[in-house]
Amino acid sequence: IAGAAAVAHAQEDPLPSWNDGETKSAIVAFVEAVSEEGGPDFVPVPERVATFDNDGTLWAEQPMYTQLAFAIDRVKALADQNPDWKTTEPYSSILKGDIAKAFPNGVKDVLKVVLATHSGLTSDQYAAVVRDWLETSRHPAKGAAYTKMVYQPMLELLAYLRSNDFKTFIVSGGGIDFMRVFTEEVYGVPPEQVMGSSAKLKFDIVDGAPVLLKQPEMDFIDDGPGKPVGIGTHIGRKPIAAFGNSDGDLQMLQYTCLPPGPSFCLYVHHTDAKREWAYDRKATFGKLDKGLDAAASHGWTVVDMAKDWRVVFPD
Amino acid sequence: IAGAAAVAHAQEDPLPSWNDGETKSAIVAFVEAVSEEGGPDFVPVPERVATFDNDGTLWAEQPMYTQLAFAIDRVKALADQNPDWKTTEPYSSILKGDIAKAFPNGVKDVLKVVLATHSGLTSDQYAAVVRDWLETSRHPAKGAAYTKMVYQPMLELLAYLRSNDFKTFIVSGGGIDFMRVFTEEVYGVPPEQVMGSSAKLKFDIVDGAPVLLKQPEMDFIDDGPGKPVGIGTHIGRKPIAAFGNSDGDLQMLQYTCLPPGPSFCLYVHHTDAKREWAYDRKATFGKLDKGLDAAASHGWTVVDMAKDWRVVFPD
Ligand SMILES: [Ca+2]
Ligand SMILES: [Ca+2]
Repeated sequence: IAGAAAVAHAQEDPLPSWNDGETKSAIVAFVEAVSEEGGPDFVPVPERVATFDNDGTLWAEQPMYTQLAFAIDRVKALADQNPDWKTTEPYSSILKGDIAKAFPNGVKDVLKVVLATHSGLTSDQYAAVVRDWLETSRHPAKGAAYTKMVYQPMLELLAYLRSNDFKTFIVSGGGIDFMRVFTEEVYGVPPEQVMGSSAKLKFDIVDGAPVLLKQPEMDFIDDGPGKPVGIGTHIGRKPIAAFGNSDGDLQMLQYTCLPPGPSFCLYVHHTDAKREWAYDRKATFGKLDKGLDAAASHGWTVVDMAKDWRVVFPD
Repeated sequence: IAGAAAVAHAQEDPLPSWNDGETKSAIVAFVEAVSEEGGPDFVPVPERVATFDNDGTLWAEQPMYTQLAFAIDRVKALADQNPDWKTTEPYSSILKGDIAKAFPNGVKDVLKVVLATHSGLTSDQYAAVVRDWLETSRHPAKGAAYTKMVYQPMLELLAYLRSNDFKTFIVSGGGIDFMRVFTEEVYGVPPEQVMGSSAKLKFDIVDGAPVLLKQPEMDFIDDGPGKPVGIGTHIGRKPIAAFGNSDGDLQMLQYTCLPPGPSFCLYVHHTDAKREWAYDRKATFGKLDKGLDAAASHGWTVVDMAKDWRVVFPD
C-alpha cells in the first residue's frame, strides 16, 4: 500500500525531486500557462522549444568537465604511441598532471586536445571510444559512473516538459559527438536534438564503406554568443524556455527571454557543498557571475540547489 | 458516394498519385519491411531517418532554381538604392537579364548574391522578405505560386513515411532560412528538420531586442559531400532512406545506402517534358549524370516521372 501511494503521488507530482517553493511553482505555472488552450499565454505545440545546457545544468562539472577527464585519460592511453608528447605542450603538462598549465583557456583548450587526439577517426570509431570510456570510468570524488552524475530533478524537468509537448534540445559547449553517445539513453534527447561544439568532418568512402572522418580543426564553438547562433542555424526558431548554469549560457537566455511573449529562463545555482559543490562567481569550471546579475535584473528563476532539490543524483 | 469511395481508396492506398509498378512497389516493400516488428529488416523507430533534397526532388527547379528567381527579383527591387550595381558584376548582368553571365558557377553564385543583398538583416526580417516574395511571385512558365510547384507524389511519400514513424528531414543546397519560411506548411517538415546552405550569423541585442544578424559570408554549403557532413553534424546518425534528383545528392545516397543493413535510395528522374520538364545528364540546373550511373550499378530506385506519377502537381 505504501508503494502504491508513492506511485500515485508521483503521478500527481511530475517533479517529485523538487521541494515545494517559489522555484518549483514558477516552473509549473509557466508550463501550465503555455499549455492552456485559449489562455492568454498559450503557445502552439510546434513553438514549444526548450534548450538545456549540459555541463553543470544536466550533469556535474566538478572537479573538472567530464570531457576534460576523458581528454586526460586519452592522452595517457595514447602516450606510448606518441613519444614526442613527453616534450610537447599541452601533452607534457597533461602527462605530468599539471592541468592548469595544460588548459589555460578552459574549454577551448580541452576541445583542441580532444580534436588532436582523435583526428582521422571516423564518427563511429570515436563514438565507440567514448562509449567504452564512459562505461569503464568513474568520477574521482563520487565513485559513480559519469552517466550517473546527472541531476534527478533535471531529468524530471525534461520529462515534464516533453509530457506537455515541448521538444527538448541540448545546447552545450561540449563536443557534439561526445554527448550524443549518451544523451538519448540518459536524457531522452535524440542525437538530432543535441547541439555542441564540433570538429570539421570529411566524407569519404574507405574500402567501399562511407565514413565521416574527424578533421583536426574546430568547426563551431557552441558557447556564449555561439549558443543563440547555433540555435538559429540548427533549430531555426527561438526557444520559449532555456536552462543553464553559467555565463556561457547568458546569450542563450537573453535570446530566449528578452523578446516579448511567454518565456521561461532558469539558472541552476550550485549552492550545495554537501551533496554536490558550491561555486559561482569565481569558479574555474562553470563561472556564474554576469548571469547571476542578469537573472536578478530580469527576474529569471534561479535554482538554489541546496534548498530547491530534494535529491540531487538518481538512486 | 463517389466521393466516399475516393476517400476509402485514399485510405487504403497511401500513395494514390503513384501509378502501380516497380517504383511504387519498391517504396511500399521497403517501408513495410523496416516497420515489421520481429521481421528480418525491422528498424527501431528512432533510427527511421529519411532525408530529402528539395530543388527538383520536392519542388520544380526549371527554368531556374526558385531561389535564383528570388535573387534576381531582389536585385531589381534594390537597384535604385544601389546605383553602383549598374556597373558592378554580377548585378550589372542580372539587371540586364544575362543570367548565364551573372552566375557562371551555378548555385554558389546564387547564394552569394542572396547573401550580399540581405547581409545585415535579422533572420526575422529576411524571413518576412521571403514570405512576401513567395506570396506575390508566380512561376514564369506555369503561372502558379512557387509553393504550388511541389510534387504531389512526394508530398504523399513524406506523409506515408511519417505515418510509419519515420522522421523526415530536408537536406538541400538551397538557403536554410529561405526554405524554413515554407517547409512546415507545405511539406510538414518543421524548421529544426531542415538543413541547407547558410550564412554566418551574429548574435546582438539591438534596442533591447535579441537578434541574429545575417553576415556577408557563407558558413556552410550543403551540396555534394557537404550533404553527408551536414547530416553528421545536424542529425548525428545515418539515414536509412534518402531521396534526390541530381549529382549533388550522390554522396548523401552513398552515405545512406552503401553500408550494410536495410536502406532505400531513390532518384527522381525528370522524364516528363509534357507535364513538367525532361532533363538529366546535360542540365544546367539539376544535372543527373554520375548519379544515374550509380543508381544503375547499386540498384537504387529511379522514378520515371512520366510513367510513375499519375499527377505531378497538386490540384
Ligand atoms: Ca554549463
Ligand atoms: Ca536537387
